Amino acid sequence: MSAQVPLQLQKDSVAEKSGPVTAATIMAPAGAKKGLLERLDAGEVVIGDGGFVFALEKRGYVKAGPWTPEAAAEHPEAVRQLHREFLRAGSNVMQTFTFYASDDKLENRGHTQRFTGQQINEAACDLAREVANEGDALVAGGVSQTPSYLSCKSEDDVKAIFKKQLDVFVQKNVDFLIAEYFEHVEEAEWAVQVLKTTGKPVAATLCIGPDGDLNGISPGDCAVKLVKAGAQIVGINCHFDPETCVKTVKMMKEGVEKAGLKAHYMSQPLAYHTPDCNRQGFIDLPEFPFSLEPRILTRWDMQKYAREAYNAGIRYIGGCCGFEPYHIRALAEELAAERGFIPAGSEKHGIWGSGLEMHTKPWVRARARRDYWEKLKPASGRPFCPSMATPDGWGVTKGHADLMQQKEATSQEQLKALFDKASKSH
Amino acid sequence: MSAQVPLQLQKDSVAEKSGPVTAATIMAPAGAKKGLLERLDAGEVVIGDGGFVFALEKRGYVKAGPWTPEAAAEHPEAVRQLHREFLRAGSNVMQTFTFYASDDKLENRGHTQRFTGQQINEAACDLAREVANEGDALVAGGVSQTPSYLSCKSEDDVKAIFKKQLDVFVQKNVDFLIAEYFEHVEEAEWAVQVLKTTGKPVAATLCIGPDGDLNGISPGDCAVKLVKAGAQIVGINCHFDPETCVKTVKMMKEGVEKAGLKAHYMSQPLAYHTPDCNRQGFIDLPEFPFSLEPRILTRWDMQKYAREAYNAGIRYIGGCCGFEPYHIRALAEELAAERGFIPAGSEKHGIWGSGLEMHTKPWVRARARRDYWEKLKPASGRPFCPSMATPDGWGVTKGHADLMQQKEATSQEQLKALFDKASKSH
Amino acid sequence: MSAQVPLQLQKDSVAEKSGPVTAATIMAPAGAKKGLLERLDAGEVVIGDGGFVFALEKRGYVKAGPWTPEAAAEHPEAVRQLHREFLRAGSNVMQTFTFYASDDKLENRGHTQRFTGQQINEAACDLAREVANEGDALVAGGVSQTPSYLSCKSEDDVKAIFKKQLDVFVQKNVDFLIAEYFEHVEEAEWAVQVLKTTGKPVAATLCIGPDGDLNGISPGDCAVKLVKAGAQIVGINCHFDPETCVKTVKMMKEGVEKAGLKAHYMSQPLAYHTPDCNRQGFIDLPEFPFSLEPRILTRWDMQKYAREAYNAGIRYIGGCCGFEPYHIRALAEELAAERGFIPAGSEKHGIWGSGLEMHTKPWVRARARRDYWEKLKPASGRPFCPSMATPDGWGVTKGHADLMQQKEATSQEQLKALFDKASKSH
Amino acid sequence: MSAQVPLQLQKDSVAEKSGPVTAATIMAPAGAKKGLLERLDAGEVVIGDGGFVFALEKRGYVKAGPWTPEAAAEHPEAVRQLHREFLRAGSNVMQTFTFYASDDKLENRGHTQRFTGQQINEAACDLAREVANEGDALVAGGVSQTPSYLSCKSEDDVKAIFKKQLDVFVQKNVDFLIAEYFEHVEEAEWAVQVLKTTGKPVAATLCIGPDGDLNGISPGDCAVKLVKAGAQIVGINCHFDPETCVKTVKMMKEGVEKAGLKAHYMSQPLAYHTPDCNRQGFIDLPEFPFSLEPRILTRWDMQKYAREAYNAGIRYIGGCCGFEPYHIRALAEELAAERGFIPAGSEKHGIWGSGLEMHTKPWVRARARRDYWEKLKPASGRPFCPSMATPDGWGVTKGHADLMQQKEATSQEQLKALFDKASKSH
Repeated sequence: MSAQVPLQLQKDSVAEKSGPVTAATIMAPAGAKKGLLERLDAGEVVIGDGGFVFALEKRGYVKAGPWTPEAAAEHPEAVRQLHREFLRAGSNVMQTFTFYASDDKLENRGHTQRFTGQQINEAACDLAREVANEGDALVAGGVSQTPSYLSCKSEDDVKAIFKKQLDVFVQKNVDFLIAEYFEHVEEAEWAVQVLKTTGKPVAATLCIGPDGDLNGISPGDCAVKLVKAGAQIVGINCHFDPETCVKTVKMMKEGVEKAGLKAHYMSQPLAYHTPDCNRQGFIDLPEFPFSLEPRILTRWDMQKYAREAYNAGIRYIGGCCGFEPYHIRALAEELAAERGFIPAGSEKHGIWGSGLEMHTKPWVRARARRDYWEKLKPASGRPFCPSMATPDGWGVTKGHADLMQQKEATSQEQLKALFDKASKSH
Repeated sequence: MSAQVPLQLQKDSVAEKSGPVTAATIMAPAGAKKGLLERLDAGEVVIGDGGFVFALEKRGYVKAGPWTPEAAAEHPEAVRQLHREFLRAGSNVMQTFTFYASDDKLENRGHTQRFTGQQINEAACDLAREVANEGDALVAGGVSQTPSYLSCKSEDDVKAIFKKQLDVFVQKNVDFLIAEYFEHVEEAEWAVQVLKTTGKPVAATLCIGPDGDLNGISPGDCAVKLVKAGAQIVGINCHFDPETCVKTVKMMKEGVEKAGLKAHYMSQPLAYHTPDCNRQGFIDLPEFPFSLEPRILTRWDMQKYAREAYNAGIRYIGGCCGFEPYHIRALAEELAAERGFIPAGSEKHGIWGSGLEMHTKPWVRARARRDYWEKLKPASGRPFCPSMATPDGWGVTKGHADLMQQKEATSQEQLKALFDKASKSH
Repeated sequence: MSAQVPLQLQKDSVAEKSGPVTAATIMAPAGAKKGLLERLDAGEVVIGDGGFVFALEKRGYVKAGPWTPEAAAEHPEAVRQLHREFLRAGSNVMQTFTFYASDDKLENRGHTQRFTGQQINEAACDLAREVANEGDALVAGGVSQTPSYLSCKSEDDVKAIFKKQLDVFVQKNVDFLIAEYFEHVEEAEWAVQVLKTTGKPVAATLCIGPDGDLNGISPGDCAVKLVKAGAQIVGINCHFDPETCVKTVKMMKEGVEKAGLKAHYMSQPLAYHTPDCNRQGFIDLPEFPFSLEPRILTRWDMQKYAREAYNAGIRYIGGCCGFEPYHIRALAEELAAERGFIPAGSEKHGIWGSGLEMHTKPWVRARARRDYWEKLKPASGRPFCPSMATPDGWGVTKGHADLMQQKEATSQEQLKALFDKASKSH
Repeated sequence: MSAQVPLQLQKDSVAEKSGPVTAATIMAPAGAKKGLLERLDAGEVVIGDGGFVFALEKRGYVKAGPWTPEAAAEHPEAVRQLHREFLRAGSNVMQTFTFYASDDKLENRGHTQRFTGQQINEAACDLAREVANEGDALVAGGVSQTPSYLSCKSEDDVKAIFKKQLDVFVQKNVDFLIAEYFEHVEEAEWAVQVLKTTGKPVAATLCIGPDGDLNGISPGDCAVKLVKAGAQIVGINCHFDPETCVKTVKMMKEGVEKAGLKAHYMSQPLAYHTPDCNRQGFIDLPEFPFSLEPRILTRWDMQKYAREAYNAGIRYIGGCCGFEPYHIRALAEELAAERGFIPAGSEKHGIWGSGLEMHTKPWVRARARRDYWEKLKPASGRPFCPSMATPDGWGVTKGHADLMQQKEATSQEQLKALFDKASKSH
């Protein structure tokens, strides 16, 4: 199995033309793979993967709320299959499915586990490596923000948590490391400092928007701090839609350049439209996490995102929550000319809708063109629903009693109090 | 692996309560499985599966336009995984992935196949049976409307096509048969007549709405014709949203009862809101098939559908295009009290959002309740888009030159003519 | 002052062209005016006026709730001015502002009046006549549905109420009579029978939609009953938007023609979009009567209405609640070619936006064309609001205790009970 | 006729209670009226009027495009009636209807006038004074931005234009002066300098939003410049919705206070929701000026505006384009407790919908409460329309050739070029 098909067409022509691109020849990855920094330094586009937590929740293997990744050990076939789909869609990176996989978090999340945190982390690394070897992809191990930081534990305590996860990544020899999903740049700096001890390339992404981190530090200043802490790639992941994330990465880039520093840039946004978010992103939208469907981006929205990210100088372009394999494929198709090939998955996709040329109904055949899909403003089919929502958010952040983490599930009394508070805030 | 968990709670309590249902004990299917008619005659609810074509298109294994199922032979791991997810979500039926799998259709669709129609049909039967054996599910083989009928071939010619597909189903000994996705009841009657020769139970669904079939025959009259042709189960699949499909099945039921006949009823609607469809359903919506995202139903919409279908007397309740495994799980959770158990997949899902009790942010924990999700009107995040669309549809039906099928892909001249015609119709 | 300007352009040309139509010559009404039936029999278009109750509520002279017309006596300058604006906009009819002007209704509505019902009715007739004499307009006196009918009074009692209002119209010698705003065709027939005793032309309009009157009698059957009762013109007013009203009048016309009868047809719809209404019309929309603004029709919507009404064979084309003078002017402009002149008010209006040719900003000048305004889908500026609403309506009709009329304002206990009932119905 | 009714209820109670406020006693204005500055210095709320241009356009007396006020001379009864309605609604200010009433502008606007500029200005002053004398209102004469400034004429030339208009105001002895509707603060400063020469109080409003004037000068800096030029009252009018205008006035207030200066503040926003505007305001919205209906504010939106403006420290609270008399009445009702009385027009309005207590249908009576109307999210009835629009705007400002003013109507060639340019920008 290969995940790449050489692009027979002249540069630029794919983006212009809606005709089918035939996946004729298989391009074998030649020898040892190029590392992440080699690729980025050479100006190549690196396509990331999509978020596993949301995709596997819809498939029945992750529980919303705890969001823990025990499926890596429990249901490896499901996790492997999703990796394969992203590889086939054009991803150059297999992120290990280890989000929230520290022992304390797993315990915190409630029900008795059949697997230890170490077992889960190891299984996740093996799956990522197995599929990465089937194509031209690298394996990335990731750490993210901790309950300990929110509960005001010490720098040493928080760093110890990162270190424990890191030990597995080192043992399994991942290709590079990502510190992702941080709301406070201070915690992200600590993570980068820990990850840097390995000598592997380090990418760092915050889940913030143009208003900056939850302490009010601007995107530009955040980026400078991360670069100074040692990250070679900085950017944004999760919490906001592609438009907002690209805008925020641009602010990071301006900050880094103004400070006379250098970095590569990455974005891994949501696959949900979030024009109505406040500083805390989509978590605060009333639809999170179970009614976000009307906000899902189309493949054409994704092509627009890929182009805008590219034009902004971002070269590591991937996704986060809500991304399905076809969304990643859309990124790879939009940048096919720049990369020189289309992904294997395009074997089953006509660029810009050209597959419709074979539809039964003539008026559907008439939709087989770029102009049609680019201009279409898709209807929601929901005339009784609004188009924007008012975010929740009670103005609390790190250190507030409401955010101190407890091991127990919230008690019925605590829930009752929350429901009352919520009712009043609307 | 088992797909069922006994329901420890009293009947009715699941629907009322938002607390977590623990998947404690594993219920083994006892001995030989009950057949479809045994289940329905006993008043049991049969949960169908979701549509494979759309789900696998998003995963990269089906090409929109041709919509052919060669993945059954090409990428069996992907098809097997989707079957497993539906089983885990609560499906009692594994439909063979054989949509559009006749040789003439496969050839018609254009590119040189690496597999014959027979190979694809056989592979699909084997995959369905393999996964059905992992739980309490039956295997259903299906036939659907043919290019030959649209091109005005004779009854004998059309029946010969059904017969050829049927031969594989008989050889592979599927448990029952479905004639589905017919726009003209006449063709569906022919299909039922062919399927009846096997002695296996036969279900028949049309893809029509309250306005009746494309010849203007009312849903009630259509149902009577299908029952008279020999179908034991009649209903609706595809083309319209759950609300419209349930409404149409009700009309079928009234027709059957008024005629003094008896039948079981089924519905397998879209997972897209389509209040703006005309007679031809979602094919004619401008968003079909690549920009339907804003119309996708939430899991709560699905619970409403399951309840309404149940209240309308429908007992075979499944889905079609757009359904993902979590949609099927929502049907199974809504009807857990009636069925006496929750599906295995609910191990990773808190009923009515109860998994959020463990979320980090207190205002998200406050969403862990039925009342919240049932009342929420989800925003689209798309303020520049409308909420309804005006369907295309050029008023042509069977026999019209535009609908005569050709083997070749539409030529550039033909496409040009279509684009012009389309531009004028807007 | 004259309300007409001869049309210098060739027939049909106005509708096609967006150039300015200059109001050059003043066309004096020659001698005695033609009566209503003379005009309609000759195939002329008669433009009605708009609803006074809603327009004067916004100007501060009518109280929403009671909706009584004491302003005719209290603030004659305000009522006269509105008549003049409609005349200037092209209305051929001045309806006396006598809606709900019977003594019992006025008393029922609560506060001590400074004027008797007779004084109000007389003042209203005088104002309508005064302004009608300033142009080519006729005076119409109208009666509408009574509290007595809802409270199940006898036919004689109800007819006596109509008779009392009629006495003033006869004394003031109005040109013709309208029985309008009836939800039950039976009551409308009684009204027509009373009005017919005068020998004046009688028009009758129901406030119903395609589902028929509140007793379920179809529009076609209703129309036949009204024609048989003696109405020469039948149609629809109020309660629904133009699209729905035109559709319903078409059904009336089909009924009348099928019965071998003859009539003229009229429509006086709302100036609000109401695609979401149930049988009882806009009263049941949650926005009635104080938040209907987002539903107000544009002048271009009105031109569409005028054209569709004309094409449906309707020749008495006016408006009801929500119509402002510029809405009536739009009707007159759309039908300028058919009528042979534009209204005086078009002196201050460029057809199809042509007045913008003189705007300061060039991109606004670029909007001075028909194509632009006809195709524009106007945004609501309300992203937090839905586009359709779910009507209230408790399924009660004539005879139900909740609808028995009382003289007193609803008591606090009664209101409390209503609020509770309303809360539960949502 | 009086425009005030003493408030019998205790302070604060009106805003809380939905019961009817009876307009019992008539409060005569005692002796000579208090001047504008006396009122504001005493902390009183001054309610402005609404925009005449848009209101009279809908009534048939102003032509959109030229927007000139010849109706003051041509149709005095229509202008007088609108003044009366605003007075009755609670306005303390009658602005002379003299917008765009300079000779050069009138000539520029195209058709041969029957009245000179001087005649129009004088007639407008007389009408304002006549109605102001009927209640407790002051007369304000206003100047606004000039074509000359856009065409880069000199400071002296522009000031001469202001001076000419001012001569009539002085001769007619208006009570105070307003420099309003300026997009460039520089021109507004010139206007204030000219108006100050009279010794009368001077208010100055810009039609800008939070992004500042068209030269990019911030609202705070603009306000400081205006105060230094001599304006005693500064604020915002037109171009944006109330929410945006209040926000911008707050920025002006912060600027003035930071500079150690003092001023009174005013806001006269649009009655249209404009969340989607860019820097140039509603002019650039595609719906301007003929399809703004779906954006019209309800009376409840207006009460919210009045409260927010008051809370922001604004004491001169009025309206501009789109305001109808009932909108002004809503401001006066919201601030009834603060002012000590309700306006005469409230005689025909139940506070917070209380008039519905007398409605025929019980479910409509159930809407007679503040809670209902405050929470309602009104539907647009337009499911095929978006909720936000993308503004036009070609990025040109003062000095650009496209904005140079010409006397002639735009020629057909010019229009053709504009249409092409517009088509491409979409």
